[in-house]
Amino acid sequence: MEEKEISQAVIGRLPRYFRYLSELKYAGIERVSSQELSDIMKVTASQIRQDFNNFGGFGQQGYGYNVEFLHNEIGKILGLDRTHHLIIIGAGNLGQALANYVNFERRGFLFRGLFDNNSELHGKKIWGIEVQPMENMEVFVKENNIDIAVLTIPKTEAVTVAEQLVEYGIKGIWNFAHVDLNVPENIQVENVHLSDSLMKLSYNISRFESDNTK
Amino acid sequence: MEEKEISQAVIGRLPRYFRYLSELKYAGIERVSSQELSDIMKVTASQIRQDFNNFGGFGQQGYGYNVEFLHNEIGKILGLDRTHHLIIIGAGNLGQALANYVNFERRGFLFRGLFDNNSELHGKKIWGIEVQPMENMEVFVKENNIDIAVLTIPKTEAVTVAEQLVEYGIKGIWNFAHVDLNVPENIQVENVHLSDSLMKLSYNISRFESDNTK
Repeated sequence: MEEKEISQAVIGRLPRYFRYLSELKYAGIERVSSQELSDIMKVTASQIRQDFNNFGGFGQQGYGYNVEFLHNEIGKILGLDRTHHLIIIGAGNLGQALANYVNFERRGFLFRGLFDNNSELHGKKIWGIEVQPMENMEVFVKENNIDIAVLTIPKTEAVTVAEQLVEYGIKGIWNFAHVDLNVPENIQVENVHLSDSLMKLSYNISRFESDNTK
Repeated sequence: MEEKEISQAVIGRLPRYFRYLSELKYAGIERVSSQELSDIMKVTASQIRQDFNNFGGFGQQGYGYNVEFLHNEIGKILGLDRTHHLIIIGAGNLGQALANYVNFERRGFLFRGLFDNNSELHGKKIWGIEVQPMENMEVFVKENNIDIAVLTIPKTEAVTVAEQLVEYGIKGIWNFAHVDLNVPENIQVENVHLSDSLMKLSYNISRFESDNTK
């Protein structure tokens, strides 16, 4: 791989390209120009070409890109050609929603286990997977090659549980707990801070209104 | 207000400041220097001062900032001193999780209504709020001054429902549907694209591994 210095901004845009290319692919479209992609995605064609040039450009020639090829290549860059084995910590509504989501999504992610410290939930099946006590986590992670843990537990527990998971050998954490985790650099963390997102929406509503009542 | 040209990057950082200041406040800490904030938040002190200068600097003098004042001011900038009236469209696991979340969060957001097109759910109470049919949405939004709609419905329905909500007078959409909405500029949209986030995590895991096996 040669993509040494790719910014997180470019990486952040890759899933969106992948999403649009999936749609084009399933719509049976075979080729797409950067201008057409630009029109449907509402980013400039030069941004698209620049982003793609980070990965060698994906061989645009004549009339645009081959949709299936581009879709596959971006999928590979995103690591979606590998299978990730994933557990969810926290079997509440959010944990259940994410379990369903990952199951439904399929593409490279296998939902393997669900853990909760509420003993009333133990043994209950969520989307075919039994809720297990937290004490089982260590053995389960090690025996099942789990590489991703999803945290949907309160922030007071999340920090400790994240440290344990790292010790057990997890490689990435999809963090929904309302706290920034402090893990070693070799562990990848992707935060979904719902309240931050809701506050940003609130800010933009307020700003828009104050700009328009001056 | 004078904060005319504030970038979305700065705005994106405000909720995180607010979150850390909430914690300091509830821990009873009265003053904090930009260096201390820098240490706990792991951003540079100069970044913090630069960000705050967008809003007049919040009167740091002598030993740092007054925590409660700073917390309040950032809360006001985020529009959290106003009450937002919010409905959720889609009463599945994710909708229920978000209903609970907003209820629990409180700070400026009131969960007022829940809508779903599955008639088996109609009348069922989720966190004290009855699930209503989609047909009730128009009257409900107009009569209850609803300003925020949360979309947790499939992407095939989200686009049309978003257009309806805009017509009914909604001001902001918190979008969890797996699609980019196409709404007028005066409508604020905050997207939470779960699969984009999961793919980014997958990318970072793959990249880290390929960097370390060369």
